[in-house]
Amino acid sequence: MSDYLNEIGKKAKEASYITAVLSTEEKNRGLSAVSKALVNRSSEIIEANKIDIDNGVSKGMTKALLDRLSLDEKRIAGISEGIDQVANLEDPVGKKLEEHRHAKGMLISKVAVPLGVTAIIYEARPNVTADAFALCFKTGNSVVLRGGSDAINSNKAIVKIIRETLAEEKLPEDSIQLLEDTSRETATELMRLKEYIDVLIPRGSAKLIKSCVENSTVPVIETGSGNCHVYVDESANIDMAVNIIFNAKTQRFGVCNACESLLLHEKIYKDAMPKIAAKLAEKDVEIHADEKICAVIPDAIPATEEDWGTEYLGPTISAKVVSSVDEAITHINKYNTKHSETIVTENKENAEKFLQRVDAAAVYHNVSTRFTDGFEFGMGAEIGISTQKLHARGPMGLNELTSYKYQITGDGQIR
Amino acid sequence: MSDYLNEIGKKAKEASYITAVLSTEEKNRGLSAVSKALVNRSSEIIEANKIDIDNGVSKGMTKALLDRLSLDEKRIAGISEGIDQVANLEDPVGKKLEEHRHAKGMLISKVAVPLGVTAIIYEARPNVTADAFALCFKTGNSVVLRGGSDAINSNKAIVKIIRETLAEEKLPEDSIQLLEDTSRETATELMRLKEYIDVLIPRGSAKLIKSCVENSTVPVIETGSGNCHVYVDESANIDMAVNIIFNAKTQRFGVCNACESLLLHEKIYKDAMPKIAAKLAEKDVEIHADEKICAVIPDAIPATEEDWGTEYLGPTISAKVVSSVDEAITHINKYNTKHSETIVTENKENAEKFLQRVDAAAVYHNVSTRFTDGFEFGMGAEIGISTQKLHARGPMGLNELTSYKYQITGDGQIR
Repeated sequence: MSDYLNEIGKKAKEASYITAVLSTEEKNRGLSAVSKALVNRSSEIIEANKIDIDNGVSKGMTKALLDRLSLDEKRIAGISEGIDQVANLEDPVGKKLEEHRHAKGMLISKVAVPLGVTAIIYEARPNVTADAFALCFKTGNSVVLRGGSDAINSNKAIVKIIRETLAEEKLPEDSIQLLEDTSRETATELMRLKEYIDVLIPRGSAKLIKSCVENSTVPVIETGSGNCHVYVDESANIDMAVNIIFNAKTQRFGVCNACESLLLHEKIYKDAMPKIAAKLAEKDVEIHADEKICAVIPDAIPATEEDWGTEYLGPTISAKVVSSVDEAITHINKYNTKHSETIVTENKENAEKFLQRVDAAAVYHNVSTRFTDGFEFGMGAEIGISTQKLHARGPMGLNELTSYKYQITGDGQIR
Repeated sequence: MSDYLNEIGKKAKEASYITAVLSTEEKNRGLSAVSKALVNRSSEIIEANKIDIDNGVSKGMTKALLDRLSLDEKRIAGISEGIDQVANLEDPVGKKLEEHRHAKGMLISKVAVPLGVTAIIYEARPNVTADAFALCFKTGNSVVLRGGSDAINSNKAIVKIIRETLAEEKLPEDSIQLLEDTSRETATELMRLKEYIDVLIPRGSAKLIKSCVENSTVPVIETGSGNCHVYVDESANIDMAVNIIFNAKTQRFGVCNACESLLLHEKIYKDAMPKIAAKLAEKDVEIHADEKICAVIPDAIPATEEDWGTEYLGPTISAKVVSSVDEAITHINKYNTKHSETIVTENKENAEKFLQRVDAAAVYHNVSTRFTDGFEFGMGAEIGISTQKLHARGPMGLNELTSYKYQITGDGQIR
């Protein structure tokens, strides 16, 4: 391990011991000061962001990526508002989760505590820098950030302002640190900084997440990969199905809770599929389908095996006929990424079966998959959507950034 | 990935989808049948165990290890009773953890579900085979076991009986599978069987656990490493301290919640240490101590830096003088394994500080560390004691073998 990383890890761990015992008021004071400072010093951020944008333009970055990267006063005001919202959320740290008295008389309490040091590896969007800090700081964690090289100047400017503001407020500035070295080697070292880091949350492409899982010795929470299905059952309300599919597929193409694959019961696909295709055509969605559907939708492209497992993140959807809800469930459990899955049906029994047996963070009956989101689930904010089963599943808010400890108080009990 | 492992993984995953939706009654019926079968067919187990014991003797295995490995009718009855106890515990699967209605009208429920497929890599004790099955089956998980080569014949006999019993009961026999190939290569493959395995729980030596963390792409729960401290504060009741230390160190030497290191406040060590040393001498405990303690305990051996981080698992203890509760906390957070830590003090403020700031699964005030245990904590059983912060911390019972999913039911809601 390089001295650079060791030093960062050590500082983060030390800061985490301080933030862990800050009061809610102290943490909110820090967040509020940071929120104000980002707005007051927005010109510094915009100036740094301009360098990133210029570099992006010369590198031939796409318009969409340049848009995600770019910051202006309005967007900075939005980031600042997000921090204020986090300050207003309930602080989960210190909450008594359970308590009981042991037969020998001591009291055993289970208490929520911060995870400790979180590391976040992410890609181009610089707003993640401030968001992640706010969520981690509110929950008493320190955070080590490794953003992408494309946003390095913006990230440095934001982190500088946050650190200086914390120092002014006599709060531990090392509760946020940015890896200024954005090399792959340093990222890999970060993934193995087990002595100091309690959890690694990658945010970005499937490739980035895979690399973290493969290389990390620090526990990883996998997030954000969504090959989500809508299954239209034999007894579905077809208008409702069209509506839900259109929303789940097209409201935003590039998000993890968008629908990527349709399954239709064999008794209704001839009726339903032309209506679905006509609606999706409004947004130029291309359909990759099995033979049966291709026979009724002339524009559809024959699907390959690869299509069933593909998260398009764009105006494409796969479609397949199944003979029963059981076949739909088996197909979904084979190809999904355990994110969000919907059944459209008027049959309660089939709905129940689907909700019970589909293996995913969020399973829906007659609702669009687009609702899998920390805000929609009432968490107030989210740091990501977990697609694994360990620790947290689905949207991760403040509670999911905590662990717990047992505190036992007695008067000399021995075993 | 070898076909052998892929096949095992696939079967485990398929079985997990069946066990996940078994009713509590069906699961209890299976457990009860297995419990009876193990007793009824104990001669098969004892015969197989004899081969392992004979092999152990020829390999020159220590008496202690041979004892851990050996099974007789009484021990098998104990294993059987343990399974009955698990059957009697409350089933956490399907429990509604939270529920609220979204502004748009749909109901969002958070429901406990099994983790899915658990893998357990463990060492010589064959009773783990049946214990792990019982806990996993009760929580609707399937389990892939990789025991040590020393117990392979015993493990094969136990697993054979369990599988045959499940088949007789028309329950999925693949909810328990044993890797009969005990090579290191196969274990490493198991650690990377991410497509099928949801969680890996290693049980055994620190070396085994380290190997899992280093090599696994499957999420790992680290368990069982315990460099536990007792800190005797300035205002401690010294008799209570002697009692707690004697219990925590000597009740059982080889367990993870045994005390391995003492910290004593500088104002009391001259009085306390001779009493502690005299008591520990009853069980021939060797003391590795810093200079100050060596000056008052002539038999003590000068400690090296390595001592502070060593889990002896035997009749040795390290001891060091500190100048304050803060120094004790800093020392513990530097050297501990996040397992169990105790302060002995009559000072409430120092106790509170210690309970809050020491980073460990279980923190105690005036209680022996030996209580960190699933049974003692009221869980009825345990699969291990987690020393990490993700997912579960401290003793892991049935609840800790579950995850959750969100079930959302509506009538056409879109975003």
